[in-house]
Amino acid sequence: METLAITGGQVLRPDLSVEAADVLVDQDSGTVRKVVQRDGTDGRPGPATDAVLEASDALVIPGLVNAHTHVAMTLFRGAADDKPLDAWLQEDIWPVEAALEGADVRAGAALGVAEMIRSGTTAFADMYFFMPEVASVVEEAGLRARLCRGCLSAGKAEDAAHEDFRAGLEFAREYDGAANGRIQTMFGPHSLTTVEEELFREYVPRAREAGIPVHLHANETESEVDPLVAEHGVRPLVYADDLGVLDGDTYLAHGVHLDEQEIDLLAERGVGIAHCPSANMKLASGMAPIQELLDAGVTVGLGTDGPASNNDLDLLGEMQTAALLGKLAADDASAVAAPTALRMATEAGATLLGIDSGRIEAGANADLAVLDLDVPHLRPAHDLVSHLVYAARGSDVRHTVCDGDVLMRDREIQTLDIDDVMAEASQRTSELFERANR
Amino acid sequence: METLAITGGQVLRPDLSVEAADVLVDQDSGTVRKVVQRDGTDGRPGPATDAVLEASDALVIPGLVNAHTHVAMTLFRGAADDKPLDAWLQEDIWPVEAALEGADVRAGAALGVAEMIRSGTTAFADMYFFMPEVASVVEEAGLRARLCRGCLSAGKAEDAAHEDFRAGLEFAREYDGAANGRIQTMFGPHSLTTVEEELFREYVPRAREAGIPVHLHANETESEVDPLVAEHGVRPLVYADDLGVLDGDTYLAHGVHLDEQEIDLLAERGVGIAHCPSANMKLASGMAPIQELLDAGVTVGLGTDGPASNNDLDLLGEMQTAALLGKLAADDASAVAAPTALRMATEAGATLLGIDSGRIEAGANADLAVLDLDVPHLRPAHDLVSHLVYAARGSDVRHTVCDGDVLMRDREIQTLDIDDVMAEASQRTSELFERANR
Repeated sequence: METLAITGGQVLRPDLSVEAADVLVDQDSGTVRKVVQRDGTDGRPGPATDAVLEASDALVIPGLVNAHTHVAMTLFRGAADDKPLDAWLQEDIWPVEAALEGADVRAGAALGVAEMIRSGTTAFADMYFFMPEVASVVEEAGLRARLCRGCLSAGKAEDAAHEDFRAGLEFAREYDGAANGRIQTMFGPHSLTTVEEELFREYVPRAREAGIPVHLHANETESEVDPLVAEHGVRPLVYADDLGVLDGDTYLAHGVHLDEQEIDLLAERGVGIAHCPSANMKLASGMAPIQELLDAGVTVGLGTDGPASNNDLDLLGEMQTAALLGKLAADDASAVAAPTALRMATEAGATLLGIDSGRIEAGANADLAVLDLDVPHLRPAHDLVSHLVYAARGSDVRHTVCDGDVLMRDREIQTLDIDDVMAEASQRTSELFERANR
Repeated sequence: METLAITGGQVLRPDLSVEAADVLVDQDSGTVRKVVQRDGTDGRPGPATDAVLEASDALVIPGLVNAHTHVAMTLFRGAADDKPLDAWLQEDIWPVEAALEGADVRAGAALGVAEMIRSGTTAFADMYFFMPEVASVVEEAGLRARLCRGCLSAGKAEDAAHEDFRAGLEFAREYDGAANGRIQTMFGPHSLTTVEEELFREYVPRAREAGIPVHLHANETESEVDPLVAEHGVRPLVYADDLGVLDGDTYLAHGVHLDEQEIDLLAERGVGIAHCPSANMKLASGMAPIQELLDAGVTVGLGTDGPASNNDLDLLGEMQTAALLGKLAADDASAVAAPTALRMATEAGATLLGIDSGRIEAGANADLAVLDLDVPHLRPAHDLVSHLVYAARGSDVRHTVCDGDVLMRDREIQTLDIDDVMAEASQRTSELFERANR
């Protein structure tokens, strides 16, 4: 039985206490075997182990979970900023996306995955196109993902729309459990406004029958909510509930504009939210009522959204934004406190993705990140949970482990050639924008 | 004449264009001598120089200007989060501050200054206590600062209050021009609500006579504005104007709750604002109307506020927060666009501090930072201004230069012993909190 020992550091436990301990990982099963507290006299326990990750002056935390992104959109990072969602999609993103090829998505996904590994993210949920390419990158890079093809009917002929939705189901069926179980899938009707009612009514039951979870954008902007209310005469999530979309294995991205009835509905149906605070601010979409959602018992995870509307994939930074925006939205400085924001990016995200990660405990997945504490911006050490949320950044991550394997050691990614990845992404981006502008 | 050459990189010019160029610095005068464009054939021009900073795969930007902080409050980082301003000050901060000694402030300032140098900040404005200690750290560390003693009358006997204000003026007179001109000073009545009217009326004219600029907190929270309006019958800045506080060499921190009349008053009087978006969010103070201020012609710089209400001193992250919050406040995704946020942290901040920095141009102060571009989160390179605001972090800074001197080379601070600084800050913090809790 191969063992990885993460030694000499402090460990963040599931109750968010911090203790001086070593983490022993069973690499065959990819799970944590044991967390061994060190006594004061001897800094190192002596189990015979095959591999060691040095964690002195460092904090071992659960690998972070990015509950909503479109990772290949790294290709669009900085290509069009400072515009509202509708104009940005229609003028800047969709015309270029129309020219996308599989190899572009592969290159963009690899760049984004490299950025995630560097910043301590070990699992992500992704909705995009050419998803087998994303799956292939995930398999190679070694992290976990829950993947779905984004299916739209808006702007499409009926046949093409059905073709898209069938392909979405097909991808979900084919890839679930891939990469030795690190890949799981979802069915991804894009949103309540970009998918026609009949497509929801036809394909969501098919997904349910196949046991495939459903993921979609909902209630992101006012300009999306108002016409839907006008058309259907009810709030968006009441409409979604009528469609049979709201169910325990569904979760929604955004949930910015929600009324009380909708919050109650989410709680009753056990439907979670992937909160994307930076994207909601950048597109001036509004402030999600996160503390109200939490108080109602809704599971809230944290997402970066696509890197073109953020513009990075750094969940440590996103935790800070979530805590700050949560306070502003609640008009209460005690709302979305540091421990809450940290749980959003770990436990809650893992719950949404349906993985046994997000906590360091015997038997749980060995998905971990090790952060340097020996840096000025994390001193003095009054409260490491506060530091994780309010002061740490992705660049503080020293090692990243997923499924018991070392994905990054001493800031060097072990599973991807980072120079190749960066060069390929730049090259594919140039060619893509050239094609799109032709 | 000693020359420092920053070679092989791209340079951000005052119009925010980026060109492949070398920057030649005259180290005797501490200014930029020349920006030399490189032609495509030869990456290196051949001036004989005494010192070289390598900037390949990097971007040379103006050193960032932190227009409002309380740097020694690094000692309180993470000691008390998730509380509103009043409770936080009264329950957590003031009781410990009462036990502060000069050596604590020195240790906290050194820690904060190290963090600033590491994240590309070359100038800051500071209001706190034991300011000669802060000045001494600035002198040693090599950056620029505009310093003031924070003077309060709230909770003090009349004699003690006068003593405090006299000491504030005395510090400003004595230290202006210190550290070979790198230190300038201000007079710092703490805020419109923590300083009695008579003290403003007595000491502000004395500061004016001595040519000393004035800096204070204003209109930060509603709970501060409402009682002031009740007491004086006018909005806070109308009251401030009546006190003679609003003048061209004054600038205010925060300015969150401003009405149209107050915005016009700021524009008319030429009084700028140091915007502190993270702190305003963290304390749930509200959203400053930044785009309205800019549209009215008010100079808006960027501050982190004290590291206990942020909780870091990273202006690259703060630019992102300013852009995101500015959009949310204006309900417009095009508000506070990336170039605007970047100018806030450079040119505008330099204007508020009264220094010829914030732009890379012959004759201007040689205050610069060099950022690595060869990292996944800054690829592809669609728009480097966007990347600076939306994706870069303090950890991307490779070198920092101030007044022509290299303060950090290849991520190693040259002017401070970082291990000593971190150890001293931790030690002093433990002792301070022990004393305070006795």
